Amino acid sequence: MRGQGRGVVVLGIDPGTRITGYGVVAEESGSARLVAVGTIRPPANAPMERRLAAIFKGVSELIAAHAPDEAALEEVFTARNVGSALKLGQARGAILAACGLAGVPVVGYEPTKIKKAVVGQGRAEKDQVAFMVAQILGQRNPGWAVDASDALAAAVCHLNTRRLNRLAGVAGAGNAPKGERR
Amino acid sequence: MRGQGRGVVVLGIDPGTRITGYGVVAEESGSARLVAVGTIRPPANAPMERRLAAIFKGVSELIAAHAPDEAALEEVFTARNVGSALKLGQARGAILAACGLAGVPVVGYEPTKIKKAVVGQGRAEKDQVAFMVAQILGQRNPGWAVDASDALAAAVCHLNTRRLNRLAGVAGAGNAPKGERR
Repeated sequence: MRGQGRGVVVLGIDPGTRITGYGVVAEESGSARLVAVGTIRPPANAPMERRLAAIFKGVSELIAAHAPDEAALEEVFTARNVGSALKLGQARGAILAACGLAGVPVVGYEPTKIKKAVVGQGRAEKDQVAFMVAQILGQRNPGWAVDASDALAAAVCHLNTRRLNRLAGVAGAGNAPKGERR
Repeated sequence: MRGQGRGVVVLGIDPGTRITGYGVVAEESGSARLVAVGTIRPPANAPMERRLAAIFKGVSELIAAHAPDEAALEEVFTARNVGSALKLGQARGAILAACGLAGVPVVGYEPTKIKKAVVGQGRAEKDQVAFMVAQILGQRNPGWAVDASDALAAAVCHLNTRRLNRLAGVAGAGNAPKGERR
């Protein structure tokens, strides 16, 4: 078990073909600690297969560097139209393939659920989310890109969900992530 | 240059999270030769990241085995709804990432274009496509899965497009694929 001898480490991801945000958060003695945060920005003018390869590679490298126990994905079930859903799906596909190959289970969370976990209500604004995530992780004016703080918010939401599941005595909550499986 | 000393080899793919069809076709003295054909079927009950990892792995292994110069993807721009577009996009994302990492350029073709190239008209039925692909590749009653013959059709369509571009003297047609880039 990877989780033994250290707290649970969660890789949060906010998928996008132009910018994919990531945030690595570790649970230590009941509170969340920031491990890494940033964005993956594939070359904008490269063909899509190159851009998705860059996202796949970026996620694989993050997994190799931080050995997360689980990944939490901001998961949108709506899109402006079929075309943007296909694009968003492509970014997700590259990310999920990287996680699956590395044996990292992925749990998806809807944006409203993430906002509720971090800010306390599902209709919070982006900057409220960023502010609260920084507070939770003990950072002052971190200046994160919005995709990066969204990714951290997903990771924090997942740690919360795990904790609540554990408290509620959900069977296997310590091992299997309880979220919305695709 | 991979293409030297042999004809162009094209990997055709029909993406899907349940069944991904593939077909490898080589151009030899002006006609198309069947190299490989089949389907990638990830474990149906596995979580999505495992299924997409299986698709990624399958495509990577095909590329390693057949060293295609280019890949041709059946590319749907419509879907019943946003949900199925996201799923289809995910399968595509895993496939494109595998191609991109291996340095294989991908060209997408709409189904109507593929049908037109293979059958002669854009509204052909699936079994007409399968029949004509088998004819073109000199196979009798091959009994291919529909996703496999659709993938072969994409590859045959791409070879046709390359040939037409070459005849039309499109600049660089011998190197850069001319299709609908995403």
